[in-house]
Amino acid sequence: MISEKMKPLMENNSAIRTMFEEGDKMRAKYGRDQVYDFSLGNPDAPTPPEVNQAICDIVKEEPDLILHGYMSNAGFEDVRETIAQHINKTQGTNFSMKNILMTVGAASGLNVALKTILNPGEEVVIFTPYFLEYNWYVNNFDGAVVQAKTEPTTFQPDLAAFESCISDRTRVVLINSPHNPTGVVYSEETIKGIASILEKKQKELNRTIFIIADEPYRELAYDGINVPYVTKYYDNTIVAYSYSKSLSLPGERIGYLVIPDELEESELVFDTASNANRIIGCVNAPSLQQKVIGRCVDAKVDLSYYDKNRKALYEGLKECGFECIMPQGAFYLFVKSPVEDEAEFCQAAKKYNILMVPGSAFAGPGYVRLAYCVSYETIVNSMPGFKKLAAEYGL
Amino acid sequence: MISEKMKPLMENNSAIRTMFEEGDKMRAKYGRDQVYDFSLGNPDAPTPPEVNQAICDIVKEEPDLILHGYMSNAGFEDVRETIAQHINKTQGTNFSMKNILMTVGAASGLNVALKTILNPGEEVVIFTPYFLEYNWYVNNFDGAVVQAKTEPTTFQPDLAAFESCISDRTRVVLINSPHNPTGVVYSEETIKGIASILEKKQKELNRTIFIIADEPYRELAYDGINVPYVTKYYDNTIVAYSYSKSLSLPGERIGYLVIPDELEESELVFDTASNANRIIGCVNAPSLQQKVIGRCVDAKVDLSYYDKNRKALYEGLKECGFECIMPQGAFYLFVKSPVEDEAEFCQAAKKYNILMVPGSAFAGPGYVRLAYCVSYETIVNSMPGFKKLAAEYGL
Repeated sequence: MISEKMKPLMENNSAIRTMFEEGDKMRAKYGRDQVYDFSLGNPDAPTPPEVNQAICDIVKEEPDLILHGYMSNAGFEDVRETIAQHINKTQGTNFSMKNILMTVGAASGLNVALKTILNPGEEVVIFTPYFLEYNWYVNNFDGAVVQAKTEPTTFQPDLAAFESCISDRTRVVLINSPHNPTGVVYSEETIKGIASILEKKQKELNRTIFIIADEPYRELAYDGINVPYVTKYYDNTIVAYSYSKSLSLPGERIGYLVIPDELEESELVFDTASNANRIIGCVNAPSLQQKVIGRCVDAKVDLSYYDKNRKALYEGLKECGFECIMPQGAFYLFVKSPVEDEAEFCQAAKKYNILMVPGSAFAGPGYVRLAYCVSYETIVNSMPGFKKLAAEYGL
Repeated sequence: MISEKMKPLMENNSAIRTMFEEGDKMRAKYGRDQVYDFSLGNPDAPTPPEVNQAICDIVKEEPDLILHGYMSNAGFEDVRETIAQHINKTQGTNFSMKNILMTVGAASGLNVALKTILNPGEEVVIFTPYFLEYNWYVNNFDGAVVQAKTEPTTFQPDLAAFESCISDRTRVVLINSPHNPTGVVYSEETIKGIASILEKKQKELNRTIFIIADEPYRELAYDGINVPYVTKYYDNTIVAYSYSKSLSLPGERIGYLVIPDELEESELVFDTASNANRIIGCVNAPSLQQKVIGRCVDAKVDLSYYDKNRKALYEGLKECGFECIMPQGAFYLFVKSPVEDEAEFCQAAKKYNILMVPGSAFAGPGYVRLAYCVSYETIVNSMPGFKKLAAEYGL
């Protein structure tokens, strides 16, 4: 009954579903607080109180038919201008509303961007490991993913390997920093290195290559680390942003694309992306949530909520003898499996009611991903289990 | 810079933009209330007060992380069950939450449905005239639109012509009732006729053919006319619904798909559609608006607002001598152009500050569409202009 293109995706989906169902069974059997579920990247820091206040204020203050009505497919102009000025203030850029396109979260923003610029058969280079749903988005437009490897210990891009991945079919380089699943933040040096290779390749191949910077975790960066704003280093950059993590609003589906003036034929690309937003069926980002962002542009979840978890989990695992790098951003820890087959390691962890995702689900075999967007207690209470697990592997 | 697939769509878009810009220029020159703009299908009946009340209540009563958080890609289970029961109550169906998939409006719902079932090269049969954005959606999945003609005076499907449109490549018949741009409601006889042809063709061709019933105007049906619920007449029916018109919430992007148990491999199709919702980048319908629907499932805009306009415009135009059928639903009137080239007629109307859309924009040449989702005053005040326009054409 279902389309040929969806069939393989549904098979993959059953595997994920099986994992969820297993977690549910465990919770039913042992009790919710006795299961240490690190499998889901679901933001759980409290939504800033400004958000709900803004919702009530807006509903009282704004005329219904405008608030709930259609606007330009790119979004409300006042909201777009507010966001542009906010980025300018925090990143030293020079955007205005004509560079900001409101989208149904970053996932839809990525689809809008790819619909706008990607032709069938063209290549999208992505650094491993990575969020495998990117494959779906590229597949939506019949593009091909080319995996570029990263340095084995730092997960920063291997620039020589990256350069060899660029071909006369490359259309997009998709980067994600702070990074899912490693928690790495790409350094300024890395961004400059990527940019300089792409500048050279654009000339050499006489074609435009875009960076799409997927940045839903931009605000989740710890210890004051700098997350370079990619448009400042490479002209043909489109940024995809989401408020899912910065405001703990993932269900509301609100985000934006940045299409800078410096991007080639910027105005045409922007207009085309606005239309793509319509053509893929979104039409526009949800109107009330756009207005919420207009009023809450400075709001942020309490970063210390995740930071406390980050430190506790990292330190706890290191103490057990596990090998991992300290994440600089996002809410994930990428831990080296003590055995090559990390699925076996995940299976063993279930004995201690610990749920983790095999790195192969992120094109990163030999590792496991732990999402620490959980309660602090979950982390503390999971530690005896991790200790036993480590002992099992002779750590 | 832009993808090959988007290029032709952008050319078409410039024509629409030119029309809007012309309207804006007119408004600037003559004043907003001196321009009679019937070009936009933008709901303008007041949003029912229950909606804003529900928004404020929900924000106060529901836990933030659930309210604004991720849920199943199909939507909140309680909301889906509420909607299922509402349809059962009003239509005599037998749905439950497992038949209801929340979507980012009907436009996205249609894309989810097509992503789920349509293969490249397969055909989607659509009755003319029709909302041409359907072409985009079919094109998103590399399908082909086959236009089926309707009866010249009633715009009810010509069943003999329809039957000849069904081939061994037909996958979907897309119907829309109440209808944009004609305001026609498909009678029970019509729906039965379509269903019986499809039953026969499914057997004859040994393939599954789906009806997708796009029903954003379902609640806008006048004089108590019955709008048959298509799932009751044909098993392989998917309904796409939106609250854009029934609650005047088009900017909020909230709607649903109905995938009945009777549909072949219903469960697989439902699961695939849930995943398609994720894969096209929507992930889920906006969470707060889902909850709003859960509380406002019985709310409706005041139908008399549009009905008054419908009668005034229809009677006014008939009095002028124009030829049109009385619309039974939606908020459009499809008027026969007094000359073959309806673009010329639209151009002539601009002299009287009247803006209408040429029927060719709906694959319905020789007609013009007037959207009467405008103030009553706009209709009354436009009449002297229509009289002069009629006189120009010797009516």
